[in-house]
Amino acid sequence: MKFPVPQLLHELAKLTASEIIGDRSLLVHGINEIHKVEDGDITFVDHEKYYDKALSSSATFIIINKKTEAPQGKALLFCNDPFTAYNTIVKTFRKFEPAVKNISDSAVIGEGTVIQPGAFVGHHVKIGKHCIIHSNVSIYDHCVIGDHVIIQSNTVIGGDAFYFKRRPEGYDKMLSCGRVIIHDHVEIGAGCTIDKGVSGDTIIGQGTKIDNLIQIGHDTVVGKNCLFASQVGIAGVAVIEDDVILWGQVGVSKDLTIGKGAVVLAKSGVPKSIAGGKVYFGIPIQEAREKMRELALVKQLPGIIEKLKK
Amino acid sequence: MKFPVPQLLHELAKLTASEIIGDRSLLVHGINEIHKVEDGDITFVDHEKYYDKALSSSATFIIINKKTEAPQGKALLFCNDPFTAYNTIVKTFRKFEPAVKNISDSAVIGEGTVIQPGAFVGHHVKIGKHCIIHSNVSIYDHCVIGDHVIIQSNTVIGGDAFYFKRRPEGYDKMLSCGRVIIHDHVEIGAGCTIDKGVSGDTIIGQGTKIDNLIQIGHDTVVGKNCLFASQVGIAGVAVIEDDVILWGQVGVSKDLTIGKGAVVLAKSGVPKSIAGGKVYFGIPIQEAREKMRELALVKQLPGIIEKLKK
Amino acid sequence: MKFPVPQLLHELAKLTASEIIGDRSLLVHGINEIHKVEDGDITFVDHEKYYDKALSSSATFIIINKKTEAPQGKALLFCNDPFTAYNTIVKTFRKFEPAVKNISDSAVIGEGTVIQPGAFVGHHVKIGKHCIIHSNVSIYDHCVIGDHVIIQSNTVIGGDAFYFKRRPEGYDKMLSCGRVIIHDHVEIGAGCTIDKGVSGDTIIGQGTKIDNLIQIGHDTVVGKNCLFASQVGIAGVAVIEDDVILWGQVGVSKDLTIGKGAVVLAKSGVPKSIAGGKVYFGIPIQEAREKMRELALVKQLPGIIEKLKK
Repeated sequence: MKFPVPQLLHELAKLTASEIIGDRSLLVHGINEIHKVEDGDITFVDHEKYYDKALSSSATFIIINKKTEAPQGKALLFCNDPFTAYNTIVKTFRKFEPAVKNISDSAVIGEGTVIQPGAFVGHHVKIGKHCIIHSNVSIYDHCVIGDHVIIQSNTVIGGDAFYFKRRPEGYDKMLSCGRVIIHDHVEIGAGCTIDKGVSGDTIIGQGTKIDNLIQIGHDTVVGKNCLFASQVGIAGVAVIEDDVILWGQVGVSKDLTIGKGAVVLAKSGVPKSIAGGKVYFGIPIQEAREKMRELALVKQLPGIIEKLKK
Repeated sequence: MKFPVPQLLHELAKLTASEIIGDRSLLVHGINEIHKVEDGDITFVDHEKYYDKALSSSATFIIINKKTEAPQGKALLFCNDPFTAYNTIVKTFRKFEPAVKNISDSAVIGEGTVIQPGAFVGHHVKIGKHCIIHSNVSIYDHCVIGDHVIIQSNTVIGGDAFYFKRRPEGYDKMLSCGRVIIHDHVEIGAGCTIDKGVSGDTIIGQGTKIDNLIQIGHDTVVGKNCLFASQVGIAGVAVIEDDVILWGQVGVSKDLTIGKGAVVLAKSGVPKSIAGGKVYFGIPIQEAREKMRELALVKQLPGIIEKLKK
Repeated sequence: MKFPVPQLLHELAKLTASEIIGDRSLLVHGINEIHKVEDGDITFVDHEKYYDKALSSSATFIIINKKTEAPQGKALLFCNDPFTAYNTIVKTFRKFEPAVKNISDSAVIGEGTVIQPGAFVGHHVKIGKHCIIHSNVSIYDHCVIGDHVIIQSNTVIGGDAFYFKRRPEGYDKMLSCGRVIIHDHVEIGAGCTIDKGVSGDTIIGQGTKIDNLIQIGHDTVVGKNCLFASQVGIAGVAVIEDDVILWGQVGVSKDLTIGKGAVVLAKSGVPKSIAGGKVYFGIPIQEAREKMRELALVKQLPGIIEKLKK
């Protein structure tokens, strides 16, 4: 998330009760967690394992729980609980505003777009031209929808990211300040859930068609002209390149890439990145031909065991 | 879909900028894609592979992109893009009418039926007697629901079919003009999605009970007294005969038949037709006993490999 | 379910056209099916296989279709169809009251709680303080929600249990009179379905976090600080102890226990009880390391078969 206007570093230090290490005079342009951080952003790190990654990331500002030198051109905010400090900033700049109407007065809705009864359109939502938003759809604040988009009934666009930090006393929620962005000519089925980005955007590329009851996690980026059959689930921070086809009930893990034009057959599980242009099957997936061969071999096991007994 | 009144063939030719081959004087009674076509209907074919199938189907009229002779008693509409011509006819006779109310004035609702707050009931919907339609259910235009039907909250009846033609520039949607028909004493859980037929009807047979978060695709026909556990997904154009039991998270592929009384155990995948009266398990399914035996044999692999090493 | 006030046994006998065997003077405090029955409750049994179980259960009163002696301190209601008798009592004390408003006047909603547009809150629902109930959520009558609970859009809390008795003429529904109880600091994603108990309560323990499109069946009890990823499905009458993690698309069968701190990897199927503190994978699950070893061995099958041919 970019701030509405750049913020003074020492104001953020005051807000989060942190100590500045480095140049106090810099301006902070936005806030992002480590996967989505950009130049001018503030991010946070609270675990030794990730100190180097955060310090050498694109972030210009790092909230950190270790006293160390600021890298060249960067500044640090030192405090005991960077996760909470990060959440404090998010909460300040992206307040949850309860809605008083089904369609917020601050929503911008394009010409020729139909919004059916019971659909909820949150604050600052933008919907393009010639869309159909069917009954009982829910679109959270700040989401952006292009032109010629159809969203079938009861789908949810922009729910909070499922992202928690485990503390000794229980799970602590990372507050989401990202959005969902849906490009032109996308169609989304009924009963789907597409979560907003934690700090960046969840994106559905132009012309992609999504069937019913599909889950797409926070910060996932889907390319153009993909086809997802019913009950597919994609976790957070995944990259699905153009022209990917996922058949029914496929599950895709987080933080990976599915290459352009890959086809994953029904009920498969994708645990890590896979190359484009191939057909996959299985839990976990293999190339489909290879998997089919394995399944055939397993059927030969009774004969093998018979032979061994001789 | 049948037309409200039979249409003159030459009017449809004009509408679609097509050339008539055969008897101009015939009346067209309805429009259906190839899976659901009936005598008196018009259908379309745009690929060499399916020319013969379409020409010898029950269709009396075929929109086709090849100049050929009309079979006896039939007529052809010749044009460059039969898919678009077909969509043009559908669009003309089944216009999307935006709703202005939660419950359309054209809906017919039987005595003793309760419709809870937030439920959406589209134009021309018929709901029988003594039903309960729970909160935030969405029922699209033209759907038909019998007597003593219960639909739990947030279920969607009659969403558009997920049916696209791939073109070089992206996916082109086949417009749905079918319905969902739900027979008496059916119960449907919460958060389900049952799509309308592309051109025919998606049917749920009498007494069938469907749990939560279940997907049923376009034109699928489910028999009487079936039982589907939560998160089952059935693709389009499937036939599920009477008394079939599908346990949790089973996936069923399109265009197949599951025979009467078949039982499919949880998490299985059904890729093609299976006989009734048996129990199945696995991805892809086998008879359950056989699959269990295989699973047991795989557990013996370490021993087998040990023996081979000797 | 406990009755609002204890009931005279002979009044229930009259209501259900049953004959009393034993002490007529006792008071009946509640009604529960066999899994949830407590001292002072009435339950039912209609199958020889379960007569002993019912008669020796905690139930003080048993509706039964066999003339037998009442155990010490208990009484029986004899009739031909105990299932229907049970349903008759449930129907009498837990009537379905159609709603006239989105938020029932009998609902009690705590300070600082926000209910977004389109959410449905049924009769006698209690919601604690500082909760957010997002748009188009449905909460059925009698459910109880703690403090600091967040429920994302279009989730359904308290739908009817999926519980049917097969009769020669079709399925007969057991009427639900239980509730859903959600403890403090729980978060539930979008598009989830959590069914009410048939006669007891479905419970989500404090601090548990549930992602999108998740099914939790009737009477299931989930412990504290569990984490369920998207599209998990849990059947009825399961016990999930504290700190359990279920990854995406895991399926859990009914009437079992998952021990404290167990982790089940994505897409797995859990058919029976498993011990806590371990990691599981597979359909059906095994310990994950063991399953991984098996998968690796299957990959060696081509080599094994080669050797055997020699």
